[in-house]
Formats: sequence, structure tokens, C-alpha cells
Amino acid sequence: MNAVVQPNTEPMLLRQDADGVATITLNRPSQFNALSQPMLEALLAELEAVAADKTVRVVVLAGAGKAFCAGHDLKEMRGNYTKAFQQALFRLCGKVMMQIVNMPQPVIARIHGIATAAGCQLVSMCDLAVASDVARFAVSGINVGLFCATPSVGLSRNMGRKQAFEMLVTGDFIDAAEAKQRGLVNRVVPLESLDEEVAKLAASICAKSPAAISMGKQMFYSQLEMGLDAAYQQAAEVMACNMMCEDAAEGIDAFMAKRKPVWTGK
Amino acid sequence: MNAVVQPNTEPMLLRQDADGVATITLNRPSQFNALSQPMLEALLAELEAVAADKTVRVVVLAGAGKAFCAGHDLKEMRGNYTKAFQQALFRLCGKVMMQIVNMPQPVIARIHGIATAAGCQLVSMCDLAVASDVARFAVSGINVGLFCATPSVGLSRNMGRKQAFEMLVTGDFIDAAEAKQRGLVNRVVPLESLDEEVAKLAASICAKSPAAISMGKQMFYSQLEMGLDAAYQQAAEVMACNMMCEDAAEGIDAFMAKRKPVWTGK
Amino acid sequence: MNAVVQPNTEPMLLRQDADGVATITLNRPSQFNALSQPMLEALLAELEAVAADKTVRVVVLAGAGKAFCAGHDLKEMRGNYTKAFQQALFRLCGKVMMQIVNMPQPVIARIHGIATAAGCQLVSMCDLAVASDVARFAVSGINVGLFCATPSVGLSRNMGRKQAFEMLVTGDFIDAAEAKQRGLVNRVVPLESLDEEVAKLAASICAKSPAAISMGKQMFYSQLEMGLDAAYQQAAEVMACNMMCEDAAEGIDAFMAKRKPVWTGK
Repeated sequence: MNAVVQPNTEPMLLRQDADGVATITLNRPSQFNALSQPMLEALLAELEAVAADKTVRVVVLAGAGKAFCAGHDLKEMRGNYTKAFQQALFRLCGKVMMQIVNMPQPVIARIHGIATAAGCQLVSMCDLAVASDVARFAVSGINVGLFCATPSVGLSRNMGRKQAFEMLVTGDFIDAAEAKQRGLVNRVVPLESLDEEVAKLAASICAKSPAAISMGKQMFYSQLEMGLDAAYQQAAEVMACNMMCEDAAEGIDAFMAKRKPVWTGK
Repeated sequence: MNAVVQPNTEPMLLRQDADGVATITLNRPSQFNALSQPMLEALLAELEAVAADKTVRVVVLAGAGKAFCAGHDLKEMRGNYTKAFQQALFRLCGKVMMQIVNMPQPVIARIHGIATAAGCQLVSMCDLAVASDVARFAVSGINVGLFCATPSVGLSRNMGRKQAFEMLVTGDFIDAAEAKQRGLVNRVVPLESLDEEVAKLAASICAKSPAAISMGKQMFYSQLEMGLDAAYQQAAEVMACNMMCEDAAEGIDAFMAKRKPVWTGK
Repeated sequence: MNAVVQPNTEPMLLRQDADGVATITLNRPSQFNALSQPMLEALLAELEAVAADKTVRVVVLAGAGKAFCAGHDLKEMRGNYTKAFQQALFRLCGKVMMQIVNMPQPVIARIHGIATAAGCQLVSMCDLAVASDVARFAVSGINVGLFCATPSVGLSRNMGRKQAFEMLVTGDFIDAAEAKQRGLVNRVVPLESLDEEVAKLAASICAKSPAAISMGKQMFYSQLEMGLDAAYQQAAEVMACNMMCEDAAEGIDAFMAKRKPVWTGK
């Protein structure tokens, strides 16, 4: 287990790699894994390191302690009460979120407890999310006079706008079943099965061609922002490129020969 | 209770204000609250007045009589059968719908009965919607040879495109439970609990900072039309501005001191 | 029954017209109706012919044999292993998909069995979809090293992004009930009722004004790609044009006279 050590503190992030899966764990349990500026810096650096690490096929984002993540660090925000600090903080937060989208590996959120405000945003921005049945979700900034503007970006791209808006203006929690029904998470399992379910999903992705997964992930988010016609033009080109990869040739040959494919990642 | 008096007629709109909630009631029950040109003019004027009224924190849009709203006034449309009239009518209708989105206060649709055609569009364009379990929804213009083009704008931004398309080409009704499942309404309750549920939702919003709610609402709709990266840039700036509001400082201080915040609205 | 005859082969496509409904059946049952280049060419030509045929009010897209459609023809793709072939193939595929959207008549997918990869894409791009309860859906290219890029365009516009992404990176099947809940299909019925349900939906559309349906379909997809304000401006103009059609005048007059309308299609 590697650890991103912060000077004079517990490691803020834990990283554990196994079988192509890098698990990054937010590790400020006494602060409910609040996303302070150092935590965001550490998370961005770790995600960038993982993005460049060819041995990593899937990223799991988890939280230590009772909560998944309770959002930004309000004490820090009040203690640095200048507009410049807030701007820098939220731009950094946006960079972390975009990094999740832009990295070549799929990122799975593993939500065992509450995910609130920017913690809920993290869930919304991961490619996939598996929650325990006791997890709960809220964008609760509005309770302290702070509309969850940045969380709303991800939230409103995961569920219907009325449902997102209600959460944003009431600050109310939804439970895991509701989160699944709305599209915020993919799967809900009992807490004791959470690691098994995350591992199963990760293993399914690890069994696929890395080249196809990374080309596909990039194309997926890019085409979402295009009109239909432009999306098809880009997707057609990506399919042709993907088809000319060694892995696609191998995959199809293996399929026709009824054998397992062996990926080279090219 | 104020009333927007129309010359020689019953008041078309009723307005009742209480505890920061302005309830605007469409009041043409014998015409199922049809959105005639005078009704749309009155509604636009009232929404503009409410938007400028700092004492109003939440708007509730309701209908008198059996129906919530049955859409445009077909008799009026046939009686003024020029293209110029229709263009003016539908541009006005679009202005009313955009006004709902653009006003600083959240607007809750209170749907007790049927909401058809432009009545269903009104529901779709409100920020939030609470329906009775006997409410029903349709975009039924197609039954009279008139595709519900303007209603489709809101409808297709509330539910999946196939589900919206089916309603538009069949004119079929969906019930309240289905409307909730699809995302057209937020909550469904028995008719006798409708006012209580609307009041509860409105009260939850009234308990929040007005500054945060209005900044948030504007940002929410604006970022929906952007790509991810641009959305995050805008949202980060809004969060920084919101954070520097008196209400955010007060909200966070109150939270850390475990007391109730007192909003100044600044 | 007409048949698009391919030289030296069974007809690849069957077409049957009745009561304003043109049923196009993919007819390569032994290849699970794989979308080979000739099949895509034939389908595009047939859709173009239907688009120009004023007697056709609704199109039903069906598959012969056990499967609805298993996607592209992998053997053909491997047998023509140049980038130029793949580019031409996927551009052609994109043209077929856009033709479904661009034709004036609504297109209903009739899915009795599996719909995988580009077969699932076909379902996603049809305006409406009715599935049997034994139908199953997957975007399974990833299993052979080929991310379903083009299918992702339609899929991600039918269901939530996390749900679409999971299907794309796992290749897992979802059943018909799940497909309905997510928005990929409109209706699910027992296999023995499939034709009846498709006929019922088609008949409902055939009973409407052709002018209103075709204006409406075009507007529907066009406004989906616009911001709210632009969408309303376009929709208002379409409503005014539609209102000045003979069919709208007839439809409203018939409604007010409580009689059935007689459409001229103008």
C-alpha cells in the first residue's frame, strides 16, 4: 500500500493496487473526508499519476471511516475568507472533477456511507458508482447558505432536472435505492457485499481490451456534448480506428474461433 | 387576496401571498384554465411583478376548478385564424415559459387535475412539481391536428426522448405515478394532502438563503446548456461569489456553532 | 409483400405494407440479421424509398428469426481489414441511423429477441420501441475488443450516462423490463402480444394528421439540440405553421363540433 504522505499529518490519501485496480481512499475520517485544498491537490496528483500508469486498468474511489465524503472543508473556507481563495479552491475542485472524466481508465465510486455536497459531486462525476444500501446522498450546501453550484453540474447530468433541482434547493437526502432509480449510482448492494460487488465490476472491465476502453471512454464523453450528426461522424472514425487495433483483430478472431482473446493493449 | 381584474370578466388570475409564498391561480375554471392570449398576458405580467417582489421567496402555480390547465384556447385560435395571430400567441407563450425559468424564485406547479398540451408544458417548465394522485398529463394537440411543438421543448427536457415522443404522437395520458417515475413531477400525494405537501416543499425553500437560491437557480439552468468544462468554470465562479455573501458566512458560522442561521439575504 | 432482392441470395430485407404501416424486416436470420455493408445499403435505400412514399404513415423495423439484430458482421469486417473499409462501413451505418431520425414518418422498433451492438443502436435510434418480455439488450462489442462507439451515441441519448457507460464497458445484457425503466423502449409485452401492441401503437399514429406528425418529428429532434430560448423560438414558429395547416383547422373544428376529423394531410 502506497500512501501520499502530507507533512506532519496522517496520509490524506491511501492507494492500494491489485490486479490492475488502483483503489484511492480519502483518508480524513475524523473530518468525514472533507475535500480541503490539500486533499484536492493530493487527489489531483494521484489521479494524474494513475492516469499515466499503464498497469492500472480501473480506479476505485473510496472513503475511510463512517462517511464516503462530506464535501468541502467549511472551516478552511471560512478561515481563508477571501474571494481569491474561494476561486482557487473551486477551480481546483473543477480540475479534479474534469480529471476523473479525462483519465483513460474508468473510475468507480465506492460509496459505503453518506456522500454530501462535493462528496455527492464526486459520485456524480465518476464513470460508475456502486453504493451500499445504507449510503445516502445530498447536495446540502444550501443549508449553510451556499448553493451547491459545482455539484449541480454533475448531478444534473446524472438525473432529471426537476429531481436535481429539488435536492439542490431543499438539501434533502435521498437513499441508495432512490439514487439508483434516478441514475446517480449503478448498483446498490448490502454493505457487507460492497467490496465484492465493486471487485466484480472492476474485474469485468479489466477483462476487456485497455485500448478499446480508453478510446471508448474518451469518445463517450466527447460525443455527449455534440449534436447527433457530429456525434456519429466522430464515433464512426473512432470505430474505424479501434477496429484497426491489434486487440480488435484478436478479439474477433478469438470470438470466431470460440477461444478466449489475449489482449496486447495495442 | 389580490386579483388581476380583466375588464368585464371574472379575474383571470388570483394571487394570494402568505409567508413568502405567492400562489398564482389560473382562474378560468369553465374553460379548464385555457391559456388564451389575455390569460398569457396576465400571467406574464404577474410573474414579472412577483420576480421583482423581494418579499416573495417561492411561487406556486395552481389552477381553479376541475383541471390544472387544458392548454391553449382552441376557440380563440380558430377565431383569429391568421398566421400573425398564431405567431404572436406562441411567442408570448414562449416568453411566459422563459419567464418561469428566468425569475429568481423557484416556481412549484401544484397539479390537482388534468394538465394537457400547454398545461403540461407549464408543469414541465416549473422548477418543481407536486401532483395529486388523480392528476393526469398529456400533450394532446396531435388529436386536433396540432403537434405540441412548444410543449415538447419542456417535456423532452423532463423525461426520456422516446417517452416524450410517444406522448406527442399518440396524445395519450399518463397518470401521476408514471409522471413521477419519468421525472415530470417531483412528488405525488393524495388530493387531500396536496396543499400540505406543496406548503412543506415551499417552506423548506423559504428556510434557505434567498441570495443562494436565486444565484443557484440562475446558474443551474445556464450550466445545463454548456459543455462540462465551461459548466465547471461558471459554477466555480458562482460558488466563490456565493461564498463571499453574508448569508454563506452566517450559514457556516451557525453550522459550526450548532445554531440556526439568520439570513440577511445578502 | 415486396422484397429487396440481392443478387444470388435470399432477399436481405422484406417489406410489407398494410394500412399505412410499412414493415421492414431484416432477413438474414442465420446471421442474426447482422448489419453487413450490403444490408446497410439495402436498409438505407429502403428507408429512403419509404420516406418518399406518401402512403406510408408509420414504419416498423423488425427482424426475422431468433434475434432482432446482432450488430455488424464481424466476419465481413475482419475479411476486409483496411481502415478505408471500416471508415466507409461506419459512415454508412451513421447515415442509416440519421435517416431514421430524418424521415418524416415515425419509426417503431419491434424487438422480439436479442438486440446487440449496432442492433441495440438501431433500437435506440428508432423514435419508438416495443419489446417482447424475452428481448434482451447489450452493446457487446467490448467483448471482442471493439468499444461500441457508434451505438453509444444513441444509447446515451436514451438512458442515463452511468447506465449507458456500464453497458458499454461490461458488455452485459439488460432485460426488457430494465430497458423500459431506463427509457430504451416504450412498451414491453409478452411475445405473443408483440404484433398486436405494435399494431396498436402504429394505428394510434396513423389516426393523426400526417402533416402534424412530420412537422412535429422534425422539430422534436431539432429542438433537442438547442438551448431553451432558441428551442422555444423554433417551436413557436412551427406551431404557427402547423396551426395554418388545413388539418389543424379541421381538427379543431371537428373537436368543437364533437365529430371525428377528416385529414387531408395538408
